[in-house]
Amino acid sequence: MDDLRRRIPDKKEPESRPDSESDHRDELDSEDDKVDAAQTIPQGTDKTPEVLTDVLSGLSSRWRNWVIRTIFTLFMIGLFGFIIYLGPLALMITTLLVQVKCFEEIINIGYAVYRIHGLPWFRSLSWYFLLTSNYFFYGESLVDYFGVVINRTEYLKFLVTYHRFISFCLYVSGFVWFVLSLVKKYYMKQFSLFAWTHVALLIVVTQSYLIIQNIFTGLIWFIIPVSMIVCNDVWAYLFGFFFGRTPLIKLSPKKTWEGFIGGGIATVIFGLIASYILCQYQYFVCPIEYTEDAGRMTMECDPSPLFRPQQYTLPQSFASIATAIGFSGTITLYPFLLHSLSMSLFSSVIGPFGGFFASGFKRAFKIKDFGDVIPGHGGIMDRFDCQYLMATFVNVYISSFIQMSSPQKILQQVLTLKPEQQLSLFNMLKFELEERGILTRSPMIQP
Amino acid sequence: MDDLRRRIPDKKEPESRPDSESDHRDELDSEDDKVDAAQTIPQGTDKTPEVLTDVLSGLSSRWRNWVIRTIFTLFMIGLFGFIIYLGPLALMITTLLVQVKCFEEIINIGYAVYRIHGLPWFRSLSWYFLLTSNYFFYGESLVDYFGVVINRTEYLKFLVTYHRFISFCLYVSGFVWFVLSLVKKYYMKQFSLFAWTHVALLIVVTQSYLIIQNIFTGLIWFIIPVSMIVCNDVWAYLFGFFFGRTPLIKLSPKKTWEGFIGGGIATVIFGLIASYILCQYQYFVCPIEYTEDAGRMTMECDPSPLFRPQQYTLPQSFASIATAIGFSGTITLYPFLLHSLSMSLFSSVIGPFGGFFASGFKRAFKIKDFGDVIPGHGGIMDRFDCQYLMATFVNVYISSFIQMSSPQKILQQVLTLKPEQQLSLFNMLKFELEERGILTRSPMIQP
Repeated sequence: MDDLRRRIPDKKEPESRPDSESDHRDELDSEDDKVDAAQTIPQGTDKTPEVLTDVLSGLSSRWRNWVIRTIFTLFMIGLFGFIIYLGPLALMITTLLVQVKCFEEIINIGYAVYRIHGLPWFRSLSWYFLLTSNYFFYGESLVDYFGVVINRTEYLKFLVTYHRFISFCLYVSGFVWFVLSLVKKYYMKQFSLFAWTHVALLIVVTQSYLIIQNIFTGLIWFIIPVSMIVCNDVWAYLFGFFFGRTPLIKLSPKKTWEGFIGGGIATVIFGLIASYILCQYQYFVCPIEYTEDAGRMTMECDPSPLFRPQQYTLPQSFASIATAIGFSGTITLYPFLLHSLSMSLFSSVIGPFGGFFASGFKRAFKIKDFGDVIPGHGGIMDRFDCQYLMATFVNVYISSFIQMSSPQKILQQVLTLKPEQQLSLFNMLKFELEERGILTRSPMIQP
Repeated sequence: MDDLRRRIPDKKEPESRPDSESDHRDELDSEDDKVDAAQTIPQGTDKTPEVLTDVLSGLSSRWRNWVIRTIFTLFMIGLFGFIIYLGPLALMITTLLVQVKCFEEIINIGYAVYRIHGLPWFRSLSWYFLLTSNYFFYGESLVDYFGVVINRTEYLKFLVTYHRFISFCLYVSGFVWFVLSLVKKYYMKQFSLFAWTHVALLIVVTQSYLIIQNIFTGLIWFIIPVSMIVCNDVWAYLFGFFFGRTPLIKLSPKKTWEGFIGGGIATVIFGLIASYILCQYQYFVCPIEYTEDAGRMTMECDPSPLFRPQQYTLPQSFASIATAIGFSGTITLYPFLLHSLSMSLFSSVIGPFGGFFASGFKRAFKIKDFGDVIPGHGGIMDRFDCQYLMATFVNVYISSFIQMSSPQKILQQVLTLKPEQQLSLFNMLKFELEERGILTRSPMIQP
């Protein structure tokens, strides 16, 4: 997100960026070189394919960058579309891969900031913690969604029953390992990196777990927010590039109010159109469920009222205007469109702060980009910084406004109880429902 | 925990401790002086009451310390007993106060490490995040336990329904506030302290939330683990003081194998005795429930099988030995005693690593103690470092081995659904139970 809004012509290169991109392209090529160049922190190198550099050699650097960025933006959007086409499993694997790459980028910065050579076990420990926390979080959602199936397979059952305990043991082993690996000379660096690793886990693992949860609620809850952030990025960049004049925030001197507002408006419009289209396909709106018969994840359902057209009556004042110009006093739309509106507002007002944060972070540690994977864009983390904030918002939004725990999910929980407990719950519920007249009273059912 | 095992006579004072305690006692007295003395990081000062120092002036420093520690250990144990006597609410408030104090101690160290004068908003921001995360975590458990009651009070209802959303908004406001407070000169310090704050929250708030959960499961799940850690500390200190000879770990040069093993054995024995006593009182073993009629929290129940004597048959080989020496082949005990055994093993084998970790942390940042609240002991965090690790263990242990979701808790969830959803769940459950023959089939009940 970061670089997107700062492409207005601006001579003031911030002081904290000691090296230009091109200096680095030759200097630091392999991963190892970076770490060895301990004096300066590795900068994102630009991996633009040579053929492109040749073709674009006639353009000014500003426009060359524009073209490269555009090409790779389109490429990434296409890739994203293809992964959606492949289905939810592919999306989850992609989320996992992106998460691992982001973690690597953050950890590499910490590695370089604290200039560590021969610090015992640090890298292995970080990856171990990544594994452990993924085991815990992914396990938790697998248990939620495949619990009943896994419970049937005898030798997997203990993995479900003792999931938290196993995760905790794994974590504590890492913790003990860390304490045993402490070396007097390095105490402070080791503790700083321990904290660094944990903050990275907090940002990357917990939030990508929320993304997976969103996917399970229905692909639309994943695709719309992700593409809103992309849309906001792209349009803010374009508005800023062509009309940008008024600086927005000191932190990112190339971001402008024009980009911010233009991007926001474009995002709201895009969000409504995209939501309208996606609302019409079960593939996008149905929760993902593991169907035992098919042995795979399916997205078929009777769509929830959220995705069925509904008539809203306009407030009196609006209605009178509407009828005056020939419309009826009511409006028919998918209720989801209203949620789409909240999401697009969040993604264009608060979303950019994720970018500012990343931007400030990069300045704090004097790096240009998190990595060099995507030509013209930097690292994966440079493109996903706002996605994480957005995913958390959507997750909280769903749990607060949409999915007030569903009967199906609670039933799953009930079925993990012992039979006699299930029966006792049944009778308690029966009593409660009869008390409140929701159920007509009938004699107590005995087992 | 940290200092407890390192009281064996040892001439090698670690190099990383530049100042002796007494130097500091005069130099740094008030909180403000500490922060101003930016060159060195504040050391825990010793606040031993003057009357005690006078009385003990005849003793050698080693024994003086011993007496002061003992007096204040007994004082703290007494205080703990008194709070237990006051009941669960007092315990929860104490947990909260301890948490706030620990957070303050950790944050103060960060404040001093990064030597910040006039860093905008940092202190307010840290406290804001503490408030926000407490609101979130305490809210989550209040919703769990008082959900039904709160739901009845109309104007509180939205606090329950939108709890996560409100918490998220609060957090995001803090996040935006942080980004807006960034000042070029301080970027790196601000980000480091942001991370520092979050790690502190992770350690202190999330884990004290787990402690509250443990308290709700029954006071015994709180009292036994806490006193095990205390017992382990005390006996490891005493064993180390009187018999300590073989150094245990480089990190804490005054901790000895004698203390480690002696403390471990004492903890196991103590754990069994204490559990045996507590098992007999409903006050300790019953889950805490909010009783509407009484308008307060009560601990009355038909104790779970865990706390009722049960006969175990010894394995064949043991049994034959037992009968040979005149015992029967069976043994009668509270099943809880077996769990007490696991907990005491954890608290004496892994528990000390919490102390080593804190010890290493203090060395890394060249401080002696986290604070100076308790004479002879240091700060609150010095005494609670292992408690947090232990609480997490107990929480995971309960959720894995004891409380495989109870019917009551699920019923609470069911009652938050809309009436028609409750009915649909009821019918689905009925169908499932009939399918498996747990319930005799009867005609479908209509609303």
